[in-house]
Amino acid sequence: MEKREEAKEVVEEEEQVVNPWEVSAKDGGKIDYDKLIDKFGCQRLDESLIQRVQRLTNRPTHVFLRRGVFFAHRDFNDILDAYEKGQKFYLYTGRGPSSEALHLGHLIPFMFTKYLQDAFKVPLVIQLTDDEKCMWKNLSVEESQRLARENAKDIIACGFDVSKTFIFSDFDYVGGAFYKNMVKVAKCVTYNKVVGIFGFTGEDHIGKVSFPPVQAVPSFPSSFPHLFSGNDNIRCLIPCAIDQDPYFRMTRDVAPRIGYHKPALIESSFFPALQGENGKMSASDPSSAIYVTDSAKEIKNKINRYAFSGGQDSIELHRKYGADLEVDIPFKYLGFFLDDDAELERIREEYGSGRMLTGEVKKRLTEVLADLVERHRRARALVTDEMVDAFMAVRPLPNMFN
Amino acid sequence: MEKREEAKEVVEEEEQVVNPWEVSAKDGGKIDYDKLIDKFGCQRLDESLIQRVQRLTNRPTHVFLRRGVFFAHRDFNDILDAYEKGQKFYLYTGRGPSSEALHLGHLIPFMFTKYLQDAFKVPLVIQLTDDEKCMWKNLSVEESQRLARENAKDIIACGFDVSKTFIFSDFDYVGGAFYKNMVKVAKCVTYNKVVGIFGFTGEDHIGKVSFPPVQAVPSFPSSFPHLFSGNDNIRCLIPCAIDQDPYFRMTRDVAPRIGYHKPALIESSFFPALQGENGKMSASDPSSAIYVTDSAKEIKNKINRYAFSGGQDSIELHRKYGADLEVDIPFKYLGFFLDDDAELERIREEYGSGRMLTGEVKKRLTEVLADLVERHRRARALVTDEMVDAFMAVRPLPNMFN
Repeated sequence: MEKREEAKEVVEEEEQVVNPWEVSAKDGGKIDYDKLIDKFGCQRLDESLIQRVQRLTNRPTHVFLRRGVFFAHRDFNDILDAYEKGQKFYLYTGRGPSSEALHLGHLIPFMFTKYLQDAFKVPLVIQLTDDEKCMWKNLSVEESQRLARENAKDIIACGFDVSKTFIFSDFDYVGGAFYKNMVKVAKCVTYNKVVGIFGFTGEDHIGKVSFPPVQAVPSFPSSFPHLFSGNDNIRCLIPCAIDQDPYFRMTRDVAPRIGYHKPALIESSFFPALQGENGKMSASDPSSAIYVTDSAKEIKNKINRYAFSGGQDSIELHRKYGADLEVDIPFKYLGFFLDDDAELERIREEYGSGRMLTGEVKKRLTEVLADLVERHRRARALVTDEMVDAFMAVRPLPNMFN
Repeated sequence: MEKREEAKEVVEEEEQVVNPWEVSAKDGGKIDYDKLIDKFGCQRLDESLIQRVQRLTNRPTHVFLRRGVFFAHRDFNDILDAYEKGQKFYLYTGRGPSSEALHLGHLIPFMFTKYLQDAFKVPLVIQLTDDEKCMWKNLSVEESQRLARENAKDIIACGFDVSKTFIFSDFDYVGGAFYKNMVKVAKCVTYNKVVGIFGFTGEDHIGKVSFPPVQAVPSFPSSFPHLFSGNDNIRCLIPCAIDQDPYFRMTRDVAPRIGYHKPALIESSFFPALQGENGKMSASDPSSAIYVTDSAKEIKNKINRYAFSGGQDSIELHRKYGADLEVDIPFKYLGFFLDDDAELERIREEYGSGRMLTGEVKKRLTEVLADLVERHRRARALVTDEMVDAFMAVRPLPNMFN
């Protein structure tokens, strides 16, 4: 009897962990996204909702939607209901500027948000949480702010419309209406509550305890009086990776108590590391990810050397059994970044049946990613400091709904 | 043995409690200020320091200094050392705007700070913690801000020099350099530490946990770039009631870790309630205090009805034993507000020996307070909204050291 209980404890300890600072699967395996949806209490983004987006926006849905990269949501249907009735909404996403260069996983929410902005013709606020990174990564204030501006250039390079987009750094923007909302949120959340949500301990510094309201309040239009003054009923939709869900569970819990709408969410899975699908990529291990600063040659080398293959050990076995597409990283990466549905289907069949070899798939992925990264590099080179200032200026956006 | 331990516990539970939200003496008696100095680890403000202030400022010291109202300090001698060498400092004090009208106890730090500003010719920042009161008193943001402005009028009426004084509300001013310093402080303070200092519990909301850095950072000149830009080495002196010491113990602990000077403190005892010296006055019990809005008649009535007398029960006994000046509130109040040392000494002798009666002392106190309140009322009536705006404008103070 005692032994059994011990065994159960061990199992519980090995459960997957997903929060804004840690993503780890059970037993080093894959993240179980169905379990995550159950545990977090969000909804699966089903086919009918995707069809509805296509109908409402009158354009093909983004590859991240139709291939299930964005797979979960909260109240996205309500946003679409309102949109159908002619009510607008705004988008809110963000980034914690902890590193100089972004990897491909970092681009995913921004590529998707750019699509949403274009398809729905809505304004967007992008929060750079330099205060958070200063506190969690123990960076200086100045270094966090420098990284925020560098990251803003990569974000702008994704093609956002300056007439519809406000990018802000917390160190610059916290204050005024934004700070008032932070206080309103903080009043509604006990310490025990944030411990339950985020797992803080008594030895964590109070900056950590103070931060959740900072990430919460961009969900409320009144935090941006220069954009939404007199339009405090506008709804907010947050595209983000699902590890950010704890912040917005807290936000949605508080919102009605302070007279605000709950923000809606549309949430992505994690982009897998080159070495295999067992969580998030690590910014501290450059061989685990492809960076937007990598050269075509580096991309080729990384894919050839590190990308985990589902192909068989010999050509003979491969021809006989085909590749295991469930674990094959080159094929998975193509699922994110190869736009052409027909070509992807062809590769699925040819590679899965063994007619196509890993080398050929890696070659195709190298082309796709080298092209993507080269386009990003060129776009980023055109982003001047004046453009960063323009996106980050606290200003009205008179044409944000056109 | 067990019984003894129980008894000890009871004794410990009945110890005096002094923190920013609670002041209560042991067994309902008087606050033991010597014990407080020991417990907090500050220093007693001795006669030689008071003499030194008189010498350095070349004017009589304030009645609150020479009568021991301000009785404790931290590093005040260092401030005087620096001042003697020609180095300037700035003053920082504040108020939590939780009520419309101030009582006499609220005026004490401002009257004393006005004296320090005039005597040392130094700039002053005054923090109105509307965010704190919004969170602790559960006031709306708007109501806290309204009270902050109303209180600012009473503060301005104390006679501060607009060319040397910056008054700010947290809801208006938190942000930028101020917020950056808040994050720097928060990074250095663990949750366990604030629990130890302030006694928060897990059921307290995180706004309370987040607040101590807000009160800490006005101690650092870099929080006011419009005043002290390029002068980050200027020292700070904080006149306040000793219940605020916990905030500044925390601040002084953190300061050297983030490259800043520790603020110096000069700390007052509490102004006693009319009913007797057992703690602070209560804003929720109007009969416990004299308000700056009270009429001369109300002042007379309150003193006559409520001011606890140390006089004897009958004239005969009074003539024989004299008044107990240790508990007599009219005499204590005269100690705060009667400027004339000779007259106060005369009353001490006459009243203490029984030749003067309680009624006569109360009559003299009524005159003194009615005059003080009437002067305050007139000064406040002259404070316009434009003057409040002028004091609260974020602006350089080019003549602040003249």
